Amino acid sequence: MSDNLRQLVSATRAAAPTVATLNSAKRNAILLAMAEIIDQQHALLLAHNERDLEAARERGVAVAMLDRLAVNPERLQALASSLRQVAALPDPIGGRRPFSKPGSGIVVYKQRIPLGVILMIYEARPNVAVDAAALCLKSGNTILLRGGSEARHSNAAIGALWQQVLKQQQVPPAAITVLTECSHDDVNTMLQWDDLIDLVIPRGGEKLIRSVAANSRIPVIRHYQGVCHLFVDESAEPDMAIDLLIDGKCSRPAVCNALESLLVHANIANDWLPRAASALRSRQVELRGCPRTQALVNDCLAASEADWATEYLERIISIRVVDDLDQAIAHIRQYGSQHSEVICTSNDSNAERFLNEVDASVVLVNASSRFNDGGELGLGAEIGIATTKLHAYGPMGLDSLTAEKYVVMGHGEVRHPDSRRR
Amino acid sequence: MSDNLRQLVSATRAAAPTVATLNSAKRNAILLAMAEIIDQQHALLLAHNERDLEAARERGVAVAMLDRLAVNPERLQALASSLRQVAALPDPIGGRRPFSKPGSGIVVYKQRIPLGVILMIYEARPNVAVDAAALCLKSGNTILLRGGSEARHSNAAIGALWQQVLKQQQVPPAAITVLTECSHDDVNTMLQWDDLIDLVIPRGGEKLIRSVAANSRIPVIRHYQGVCHLFVDESAEPDMAIDLLIDGKCSRPAVCNALESLLVHANIANDWLPRAASALRSRQVELRGCPRTQALVNDCLAASEADWATEYLERIISIRVVDDLDQAIAHIRQYGSQHSEVICTSNDSNAERFLNEVDASVVLVNASSRFNDGGELGLGAEIGIATTKLHAYGPMGLDSLTAEKYVVMGHGEVRHPDSRRR
Repeated sequence: MSDNLRQLVSATRAAAPTVATLNSAKRNAILLAMAEIIDQQHALLLAHNERDLEAARERGVAVAMLDRLAVNPERLQALASSLRQVAALPDPIGGRRPFSKPGSGIVVYKQRIPLGVILMIYEARPNVAVDAAALCLKSGNTILLRGGSEARHSNAAIGALWQQVLKQQQVPPAAITVLTECSHDDVNTMLQWDDLIDLVIPRGGEKLIRSVAANSRIPVIRHYQGVCHLFVDESAEPDMAIDLLIDGKCSRPAVCNALESLLVHANIANDWLPRAASALRSRQVELRGCPRTQALVNDCLAASEADWATEYLERIISIRVVDDLDQAIAHIRQYGSQHSEVICTSNDSNAERFLNEVDASVVLVNASSRFNDGGELGLGAEIGIATTKLHAYGPMGLDSLTAEKYVVMGHGEVRHPDSRRR
Repeated sequence: MSDNLRQLVSATRAAAPTVATLNSAKRNAILLAMAEIIDQQHALLLAHNERDLEAARERGVAVAMLDRLAVNPERLQALASSLRQVAALPDPIGGRRPFSKPGSGIVVYKQRIPLGVILMIYEARPNVAVDAAALCLKSGNTILLRGGSEARHSNAAIGALWQQVLKQQQVPPAAITVLTECSHDDVNTMLQWDDLIDLVIPRGGEKLIRSVAANSRIPVIRHYQGVCHLFVDESAEPDMAIDLLIDGKCSRPAVCNALESLLVHANIANDWLPRAASALRSRQVELRGCPRTQALVNDCLAASEADWATEYLERIISIRVVDDLDQAIAHIRQYGSQHSEVICTSNDSNAERFLNEVDASVVLVNASSRFNDGGELGLGAEIGIATTKLHAYGPMGLDSLTAEKYVVMGHGEVRHPDSRRR
């Protein structure tokens, strides 16, 4: 396989300069043509998806997994419509911004360019083969898609449609390549090919991401845990604090921007915490608290040291009463995962301290942690989320699939005057 | 050593939040205090440097290496003055720029923050322990400095001065840590500590950088080769093309932004190439050309396939006559190293095509490749050069030592309306 794989990846690398220099209209035309063909090919896509679903049912996979794997006419319509939305977004590449005019006479600009070749490693959801490919193409990149084996027929069918569209549009079809036969060993082999691939974006559980990061010689976008906190300051508006708590914990507990931990200022805890606990309990949330929390709240389990660092992804929350803002910030520094951190407060200077001193990709004042999302933050589209700071931090839009090069305009300038001696 | 090393690195990690929140005046005060102390401690620094030089002379190291290792009063003055210059630069962190106002009511900003802990791995030059540390501190980062053993006494002396200044200023001294006892194995151990270190910047030969990149779990700034080309278009102003050639090849042949290869449009080659060859030869440059070059130029060796990809770093140049701009771009795509690429032309549309289609961190029209330098491009200071596109591309200024986090200001906004149900 490795030779064949190397050929596939090399073809995608070879297509990169062509895709990088397609004009904006051409890149959008490809996205619109793909939307069109998806609209026309519901039957074909549903049939291939059914083969994946059948195999999954035979293996007896969980209902949640079947739901992630399933495609239906509504989801296909949504896919086509998201392609049209991406086509309508501003072009992320090409602009040339003035950078400097040093004394030598040269004029310096910076120009946005694509990264080159992106490798996407993901699980289940077949829509990634449409969405992620669309964002990469929009930003002038080529893409290798390595989905999970559970979605192999769906992914192959989507890959074949991309091939058809790219050929129609006379763009090298290798620009969007779905790797249908690609084992774990093959993935680890590819992760050594930093001569062919510029960036790896793994999407899935923490285990997948840590394994990719540990084995890769290519830069990897890391999205580890979402151990997100809400700190309720003594000056918090009590109803607002309840809203943020319930939205953060209960509106979708299984996602990374859900709350896992509640920190409450001691001066507001007596009044507010019993109310908060009852709101949580009425929504079937299990409570695990520090001793001071347990003293204020009935039926609250004791939180262990491990609880403070746990991303439950279900209806469980850890609760700690803190003496002040300093203790809240120190707690988040120790146990947070640099994902989303919220303060609920009416005190501007506490808000400022929290925003400045808490190290997380998204810090929020009086807003739900669930707003950590590309769409909600106004990115237009999201290719992933980064919880480490290199290259990108937080939700990644089209911009994160680009770099900037320096462009220098001169009139014959040299650095050493002797160079002009004849 | 590993336990002790882990303690040292953990102390630097622990200092990161403190350094990240020092205000601008405080960070600058530390830099100015260090400038002061360097001015006062010439004798001490020269004595320690002399011990390194003695050891190097005993080992019989080359003169060039001794020169890189040597410190003298002028160089110490330059160091102090560069500290004062860095202090005078604008603060790279803290600014909050408006990002979006999505319909939900939240207001989104982006705020520049430090990366955290930088590990610098470098060779010879003791000034790095001052310069790199200054840039990291200016940008609110902490730094681990691992210099070569040949400069161990000089580095230790500089490290001790930093400790003294940081203590005076009541900042955790671990913020700037010179690792004086740190073997190659220790380095490889540290490169696994992605929980403690955010970024690795290796400075040195390609071999050092490839080895760090291959062994690191932490993101690495990669500065590989500088195989830089000058393409002389048919419309080039002949004298200007000679200037750019001589400045690029001869003003400092041993540096990465020097020219290694000359591409000449066939329509100008007959007249221009013999002149260019004689200008090069009068400066003792050895010529290695394609057959068409050899036909036009006396005493030109045949260039081998390997020559096209070679970074000579000395007075040798490879020369190829090309049919047109397309062939020049294709040649650079095949053999270039994404460093600095120059076109000399009077034709604006050819200039544009070259700027857009050549993939290099710095592309230049009618200016010497030697302008690929932080100072020359107006960056104020340079911490390194990246020839891969992730996080930074080209010369890296203070900006490259920062990331941006999202800051969200709300008024109690939630994503799911049910969250407000009492």
